[in-house]
Amino acid sequence: MTSTFQSNGLVTLLTDFGTRDPYVGIVKGVLWSEAGPNLRAIIDLSHEVPPQDLVAAAFFLEHTWRRFPPGTVHVCVVDPGVGSERDILLAECDGHAFLAPDNGVLGPVLADAGARLRRVDVSGLGLAGGSNTFHGRDRFAPLAAWLVAGRVPTELGTELAAPRAAGVLAPRPAPGPGGLLRTRVLWIDRFGNALTDAPGAGGPYTLVLRERTLRQVGTYAEARPGEAVLLVNSYGLIEIAVRDGDARTTFGDALERGTELSLDPGGDPR
Amino acid sequence: MTSTFQSNGLVTLLTDFGTRDPYVGIVKGVLWSEAGPNLRAIIDLSHEVPPQDLVAAAFFLEHTWRRFPPGTVHVCVVDPGVGSERDILLAECDGHAFLAPDNGVLGPVLADAGARLRRVDVSGLGLAGGSNTFHGRDRFAPLAAWLVAGRVPTELGTELAAPRAAGVLAPRPAPGPGGLLRTRVLWIDRFGNALTDAPGAGGPYTLVLRERTLRQVGTYAEARPGEAVLLVNSYGLIEIAVRDGDARTTFGDALERGTELSLDPGGDPR
Amino acid sequence: MTSTFQSNGLVTLLTDFGTRDPYVGIVKGVLWSEAGPNLRAIIDLSHEVPPQDLVAAAFFLEHTWRRFPPGTVHVCVVDPGVGSERDILLAECDGHAFLAPDNGVLGPVLADAGARLRRVDVSGLGLAGGSNTFHGRDRFAPLAAWLVAGRVPTELGTELAAPRAAGVLAPRPAPGPGGLLRTRVLWIDRFGNALTDAPGAGGPYTLVLRERTLRQVGTYAEARPGEAVLLVNSYGLIEIAVRDGDARTTFGDALERGTELSLDPGGDPR
Repeated sequence: MTSTFQSNGLVTLLTDFGTRDPYVGIVKGVLWSEAGPNLRAIIDLSHEVPPQDLVAAAFFLEHTWRRFPPGTVHVCVVDPGVGSERDILLAECDGHAFLAPDNGVLGPVLADAGARLRRVDVSGLGLAGGSNTFHGRDRFAPLAAWLVAGRVPTELGTELAAPRAAGVLAPRPAPGPGGLLRTRVLWIDRFGNALTDAPGAGGPYTLVLRERTLRQVGTYAEARPGEAVLLVNSYGLIEIAVRDGDARTTFGDALERGTELSLDPGGDPR
Repeated sequence: MTSTFQSNGLVTLLTDFGTRDPYVGIVKGVLWSEAGPNLRAIIDLSHEVPPQDLVAAAFFLEHTWRRFPPGTVHVCVVDPGVGSERDILLAECDGHAFLAPDNGVLGPVLADAGARLRRVDVSGLGLAGGSNTFHGRDRFAPLAAWLVAGRVPTELGTELAAPRAAGVLAPRPAPGPGGLLRTRVLWIDRFGNALTDAPGAGGPYTLVLRERTLRQVGTYAEARPGEAVLLVNSYGLIEIAVRDGDARTTFGDALERGTELSLDPGGDPR
Repeated sequence: MTSTFQSNGLVTLLTDFGTRDPYVGIVKGVLWSEAGPNLRAIIDLSHEVPPQDLVAAAFFLEHTWRRFPPGTVHVCVVDPGVGSERDILLAECDGHAFLAPDNGVLGPVLADAGARLRRVDVSGLGLAGGSNTFHGRDRFAPLAAWLVAGRVPTELGTELAAPRAAGVLAPRPAPGPGGLLRTRVLWIDRFGNALTDAPGAGGPYTLVLRERTLRQVGTYAEARPGEAVLLVNSYGLIEIAVRDGDARTTFGDALERGTELSLDPGGDPR
C-alpha cells in the first residue's frame, strides 16, 4: 500500500488537556522544534474535550477535519490508555493524515471507504522512551512533525486491516416502526443547544419533550422568542434549540448528554 | 468609491463561540482552505464574548483593532440574527477591513470619519447556500479568506451610506451639572476591575460607592493594599480597581455591568 | 558580555490575562505590528495562570521553554508590580531569550549556570510612556518584537549580576532523617493530578494520605481502576493521581496547593 499524503504545513490539535496547564504549549514546542521550515501553523480544534471523553472527541473530529485543506495532519490526543500497550494509529483519508491512539476515536474517519490505516512502529522509530504519561509530547508531536517535515506514512508504520478498538460513536439512527427515529443527545454546545445524532435529511420532525411539542424550523429567526424548536444544525444533524434562550437551562435534566429522544416525522407541526 | 485595502495576511477573529466546541477550529479550517498562500496568521481576539452580547463585542473590537497593522481583516461573528435577513457588512478604516453582521457591533469603527461601508452581495458571490445557523463558517470565513487572497472590497459588495442597525454602544458620557460625569460599568474584566465608559481625560475624579469615597491614582502601586481606587486604564477609560484584590468581589452587586456611577471632578481626593 | 541570541521567529506568551478579555489579542497585535516579516508564530503557553500567581508562572515556564527551539523569545507577564519601579529583565539561556518583570518568575531560568541577565533600559528605548497598567502591551510586546526583528539583547539593556527579587520557587527538596522527602503540592492540573516538587529520581516512594498508603507505579495503567497512586510525571516530578478518577476530588482539602507531604522511600509498597 502506497501513500499519497503530502503535508501542506498545517497541524490540528484535538485534546482533553485544557488550556490552563502548559501541556498544549509543550506539544507545540516539540512541533516547532522538530518540524523544520515546512510547519506553517498549528490550529487548535479544541482542548476542552472533557477529560478522557472519547465520544466528544470523535464527534468533534468527524465534523471538523474536512474543513481543512488536504495535506493537513490531524492529531487527536484523548488517551485514557496512555502508558498501556494500546497502539498509535496513523490513518489517511482523502489526502489528510490522522494520528490518534487506538481507542475508537478515529471511528468516523475509518468508516470512510477510502481510509487507510497503519500501526505506528513506536520502537523502530525510537519513540519508546520518554514519559509514560504524556505521549502527546513524546510520541504524537514528533510523529506529526515528521509528517510535516516530509517523512511519508509508509516509513512510520505498517499497514493494518482494522483497529483493535471499535469506534466509540453509535451508527447513525435509522427510522423504526411508524417512522419514529430514536436518537440521543450527543453533545450540548456553548449556546445550550442539544445536538443529536439524527441526520436532518429525514425531517421535518416533531418532538414531545416535557409535555411540549417542538416543531422543526429552518432558522433560529423563524422561532418565536423563547420558543423551543428542532433545527438542522451546521453539522447536518437535528438539534434542540431555544430562540434567545438556552435549551439546557430550559429543559434541565430532561435534556442531557445521552438522553434518548423519539423524533416523529408525522407529528402535528404545531 | 474605490478601496485601498491590501491584505497583510493577518485575520483576527472575535466571536461568542467559546473554545470548548470546535466551531472556531472549523472557521479556521475554511480560512486555511480558501485563503491560499497569502494567509500568514489567524489571531483570536476573544471567543468568550458572552453569547449574543453585542455590547461586549463592540467594546472589545473598539479597543483592539488599531493595535494590528494596516491590511488586517477583522472578523466579528456575534450574530443573534443569523439566518434572518440581516446584511453582512464590509467596512474599511485606515487600511483595515472589517466583516460583521449589520447589528450595531461595528458602531465604534463606523464612527470614524474615514470609515467606508459596503453591504456584502451574498447571493452574487454564491454564498446564499450553506447552513442557516453557522455563517461564521459559510459566509464570514470565505469572505475573509478572499480578502486575504487578494479580492478587493469593491468586488464583494455595494457601497452603503449607513448600516441599518444603530451602534450598540452609548455615546461617550459628557459632564453634566456641577461637572459630574454620569457613566456606567461596561465590562468587568478577569482581574475583577470594573471598566466604565468615562474617558480618563476629564479627571482626576472621586467616586462614592457603598459609603466609601474612592480617589483616583496613577498606578495600582500608588494604592494601599486592599484599597479601592479609580484609575485611567489601558483603554484610556476610568476603571474601579482594588489593589491586590478584586473590585467585583469587594463591591458585589453594587458594581455590576450596567451599574450607573457619578464621577466627581471636584471631590475631596481622600 | 556579548550575546549569542538569534531569533527563530517564534514568541511564546505566558500571562495571567485569561482569554475572555481581549488583552492577549492586543499584545499579539503589537507583536505583529512591530516585529516585521521575521515573526513566524506566537504560541500561547497559558493565559490562565491564576491572577498574580508567580509560583504557577515560574513552574509553568520552567517545564516548558526547553521544548522550543533555540532562538525563541519567551515573554512572561504575570506582573503584580506593574506601574511600580520594578525592572524588566531580559535573560538569555542556551540560545533562548526571556522577558519578564523582576519579581522572581525567572528564578528557574536564572538558576542555570549558563544564564545571562540584563536590565532593560526602558527610558533609553523610549518605552517609559504608555499606560501604567498594561506593560504587556506597552513594553513587553515591543521588546519581544524588536528581538524578533533582529535587535540584539546588548542594545536593549545593561548587564546585571543578579535580579533584585528572589526566585519564587523553593529549592528542590532533599531527603531528611530516615530518608523521608518532605515535599508539597505545587499545582493541581486539569485532570485533578496533584503535582509535587519532588524529583522522581529518589523513588519509588510510598505516601500515607488520609489513612491510605499510596504506592508508586510506572504508568496510570498499572494502577487499579479508582486506585490512588504515586507516579513520576512528564515533568520528572512525583505526582498523586487516581486512575480513571481525580485526586483532587478523591482527597478534597487533604490535597491542595501547598499541602506538605512526606514521601517514604522505604515504605511497604502495598
